[in-house]
Amino acid sequence: MSQISLSNLNGAAKADFVAALANVVEYSPWIAEQLADKRPFAGINQLHTALMAVIQGADPDVQLALIRAHPDLASKTRRAAGLTAESTNEQNSAGLDRLSDAEYAAFERVNNAYRAKFGFPYIVCVRRHTRDSVLRDFEVRLRNIAKTETRRAIEEIGRISALRLDQLVIADDELKVHGRLSTHVLDNQIGRPAAGIPVELVELSALGENRIIARAVTNADGRTDQPLIGGRPLPIGRYELRFSTAGYYAERNVQLTDPPFLDDIPLRFAISEPEGHYHVPLLVTPWSYSTYRGS
Amino acid sequence: MSQISLSNLNGAAKADFVAALANVVEYSPWIAEQLADKRPFAGINQLHTALMAVIQGADPDVQLALIRAHPDLASKTRRAAGLTAESTNEQNSAGLDRLSDAEYAAFERVNNAYRAKFGFPYIVCVRRHTRDSVLRDFEVRLRNIAKTETRRAIEEIGRISALRLDQLVIADDELKVHGRLSTHVLDNQIGRPAAGIPVELVELSALGENRIIARAVTNADGRTDQPLIGGRPLPIGRYELRFSTAGYYAERNVQLTDPPFLDDIPLRFAISEPEGHYHVPLLVTPWSYSTYRGS
Amino acid sequence: MSQISLSNLNGAAKADFVAALANVVEYSPWIAEQLADKRPFAGINQLHTALMAVIQGADPDVQLALIRAHPDLASKTRRAAGLTAESTNEQNSAGLDRLSDAEYAAFERVNNAYRAKFGFPYIVCVRRHTRDSVLRDFEVRLRNIAKTETRRAIEEIGRISALRLDQLVIADDELKVHGRLSTHVLDNQIGRPAAGIPVELVELSALGENRIIARAVTNADGRTDQPLIGGRPLPIGRYELRFSTAGYYAERNVQLTDPPFLDDIPLRFAISEPEGHYHVPLLVTPWSYSTYRGS
Amino acid sequence: MSQISLSNLNGAAKADFVAALANVVEYSPWIAEQLADKRPFAGINQLHTALMAVIQGADPDVQLALIRAHPDLASKTRRAAGLTAESTNEQNSAGLDRLSDAEYAAFERVNNAYRAKFGFPYIVCVRRHTRDSVLRDFEVRLRNIAKTETRRAIEEIGRISALRLDQLVIADDELKVHGRLSTHVLDNQIGRPAAGIPVELVELSALGENRIIARAVTNADGRTDQPLIGGRPLPIGRYELRFSTAGYYAERNVQLTDPPFLDDIPLRFAISEPEGHYHVPLLVTPWSYSTYRGS
Repeated sequence: MSQISLSNLNGAAKADFVAALANVVEYSPWIAEQLADKRPFAGINQLHTALMAVIQGADPDVQLALIRAHPDLASKTRRAAGLTAESTNEQNSAGLDRLSDAEYAAFERVNNAYRAKFGFPYIVCVRRHTRDSVLRDFEVRLRNIAKTETRRAIEEIGRISALRLDQLVIADDELKVHGRLSTHVLDNQIGRPAAGIPVELVELSALGENRIIARAVTNADGRTDQPLIGGRPLPIGRYELRFSTAGYYAERNVQLTDPPFLDDIPLRFAISEPEGHYHVPLLVTPWSYSTYRGS
Repeated sequence: MSQISLSNLNGAAKADFVAALANVVEYSPWIAEQLADKRPFAGINQLHTALMAVIQGADPDVQLALIRAHPDLASKTRRAAGLTAESTNEQNSAGLDRLSDAEYAAFERVNNAYRAKFGFPYIVCVRRHTRDSVLRDFEVRLRNIAKTETRRAIEEIGRISALRLDQLVIADDELKVHGRLSTHVLDNQIGRPAAGIPVELVELSALGENRIIARAVTNADGRTDQPLIGGRPLPIGRYELRFSTAGYYAERNVQLTDPPFLDDIPLRFAISEPEGHYHVPLLVTPWSYSTYRGS
Repeated sequence: MSQISLSNLNGAAKADFVAALANVVEYSPWIAEQLADKRPFAGINQLHTALMAVIQGADPDVQLALIRAHPDLASKTRRAAGLTAESTNEQNSAGLDRLSDAEYAAFERVNNAYRAKFGFPYIVCVRRHTRDSVLRDFEVRLRNIAKTETRRAIEEIGRISALRLDQLVIADDELKVHGRLSTHVLDNQIGRPAAGIPVELVELSALGENRIIARAVTNADGRTDQPLIGGRPLPIGRYELRFSTAGYYAERNVQLTDPPFLDDIPLRFAISEPEGHYHVPLLVTPWSYSTYRGS
Repeated sequence: MSQISLSNLNGAAKADFVAALANVVEYSPWIAEQLADKRPFAGINQLHTALMAVIQGADPDVQLALIRAHPDLASKTRRAAGLTAESTNEQNSAGLDRLSDAEYAAFERVNNAYRAKFGFPYIVCVRRHTRDSVLRDFEVRLRNIAKTETRRAIEEIGRISALRLDQLVIADDELKVHGRLSTHVLDNQIGRPAAGIPVELVELSALGENRIIARAVTNADGRTDQPLIGGRPLPIGRYELRFSTAGYYAERNVQLTDPPFLDDIPLRFAISEPEGHYHVPLLVTPWSYSTYRGS
């Protein structure tokens, strides 16, 4: 998807504006058409607010049609057919293209139950979720009444469209749609950052397989050169950071026992705020460590 | 094995003394016979020192015969046949009766290599080891020269006999053959011990399966009623303590995120001193924790 | 004060019983006389409960006379004259015999205000207080109505008599009147207790001088041989524990900066539960430390 | 002192260049004269390196005269008379204008002893020191031989001139002459930065009075808006950071004891690297805290 500037959008012919924003909301060009008449927009936040106002101001029938225009989540059948490129990318980001058989069965079950109960597909902004948290959200929302779910579906369409706008439109302001996960290793034995420590970030799954989603080595400041997750929402879910410290100490000629008391150190934690900043540091000696949610 | 007091041993007829101590060293009643003439013993430490002096004073041929009287470790063939009850119990304690195929193959390989190189079986005090550390010890010792291994084998026979004496003989003094692993959970949010926290101790294995070797719930003092391992040597190896804290905080009406930032907390550490005291506490809040080797 | 066993008290002639307990409550032998008739007591807790029942069952006039029989706190005039030996000891324990001029003036002021408002002396179990907390308690209670203060005065008489019984009577059970303050130094650089660390306990005062009330050196287990305060209530107040760690690390040939980043480490905390157990440990490296209320 | 750009210095008439740099080294315009001929300088580091080369290339007699051109430290007599404005400012920065009688006497004593032994004044870059560390440096250097002290004096002249150049000359590169002291308060009870915590930084003195050198309140990120010390070298010495946490918790309706277990929290540490970055954070709950040298 090539990017376009907000000022170009503001000045574009209506047809071009509609074409540019066509896929911001799934199969629903009428939204972009109404938006076009509300130009100019002072910023991307104002654009997104206007977009949501268009949706929320639509007739209930139209809203329902909008919801129904969305694909079933993780439906193998529909994947082959009519998913937009945007939807495909987003669903893959949560690992929905790598479901185990057990996971696939679980998704199918709740998906069908949801559609049977409400008559429309379950919509969720998958980039804010792991497979585990999508399943959990599914089960929670399945207990709602239809009215609540119509509202929830539109909220999620709002989140999806915000992320698509964030990728599509260049503006001076920013939509608050990104989170950040970072770490920091301090060697309390010498009062300095610990450089050269291998770090792995693992997404934990209750139903399927755990998978390593980032690998790094700490730099001279004890940090990783890039955030472990950044430039996108943090998927809600459970994670483990793994640090290998014995090699670091051995290289520094610190005397260790055999096997070393501490070596492979796991910090297990959960993310619940996709747009938040999670700093999860490790303060370590060969005989002690601590962690906390920092900032 | 029924117990006998040191004073009874000191006063017993020689034949009874020899019978009582027959299995303290595998298939070698000549040791007990020589020991009998050195009575009385002021304590169990003196008894064990005398036993080691008998072995160390023996002719090299006799020492070699003693070593050869010991069973191959984890040999399925011999297990069916001539293992003493003491050997069987000890080898089971390290999980040698639950070897996976891969582990069994690894044991067979090093065992055969050892016997091929030295002409006598590999002897180790298995109660001081996990499967992983036995394999590791095997590989280290395989590189030794024969003379070193004769000495090492006798050292291990000394450790095995000390543990057998410890179980067999009631005396006023104690052989230093036991270690202790304990924990303690402190809730730093309220400045009190955390009661009711489920704790699991898992033995980690590089080659085979991890296995849960203790389960407990913290009491009013934040400790477990019994040490996690006690009354025996601590097997050298890698372990994980797992604490579930979210349920504890939920019951105390502490507001947690969904999912809670911390819930299932793993502390991974290694034991290298089987006769040591390892205290591995958890200081915890819903947003931070620390651990250290305590005392 | 020589001690007497509960069984002797139970079996003594009434006059002897009354004589033995004469000073448990200031100048009020009628209490012991009534208690004598309720013998035998199964334990010291039952004895103290009965004593409080006698006081609480007395006529308001008698209760008031009991309260009035108590000395003014820290009154220099009365100190020369009619204080019982028990009162003198107790008041000294809070440092009331070492008041600065400013403190003495403050005590005089609240004391006179209290007597002027209520018509009876302010009574407090001084062994549960520091000078600062007595003054604070004074100011809080001065705001009460007379009825509340009559009740509070009797409560304090109960605490004073419990401490006196605890010192006087030997029994199988114990009154819960003692607290304990302890510490523990762990060297997280080597995973062992830190031995040989000098420790000072200082009582902090807002109005007068801070004073060192205990000095110790940590033993091989990183603890002090005796609790820093024990065998008595912990005086409510603010304290500082001071640890000197640089000498310890220098002796272990740990390389330190000049001056060392950490050397004289103060832990400042307050005690609010005189009968509680306060464990205030220090986990330390040359570059970090932590403390917490332990158990 | 008004600033001048390096390019202006490079292009200036020789006389103007010499005038501009006259006071970079005390009373020694010959240095600037020689420097003028080495222009242009690519950066301020190159300029300072050239300046040091001029001094180190001078005849011993000239070096000695340069050293002798410096004032006695903290000499009350000379302060009235011939101190340059630069010297006066620098010496005040270490509190040398606020010496107690005991401190003044100590300075006089070592100053006289130094001059008597070496025949030239003791030179030190006072902006890198507290009163305590100047005295300590004095005593260490008094034990040196004359040759060592000539070298040390020139080193210190190098540091003094670097700081003066740093303030005088605007360039693209920077001399590494500044340190930074910062803090950060994290509330481990809620996993967030602690805002609104009052912080004091106190310079501790063994001989004179402690003095508060910075006061701040933590902002929404748990940090102070400005570094506690920044834009200058960190004076070598002992410090205490004081944090008041009970008011913060009381405002958040956290239940505290009376008095609160923790309230006025002192972190005592020393600075030994004037050009270093010292980050001294506080991780805190109402019942625990920790600190470390961070980065």
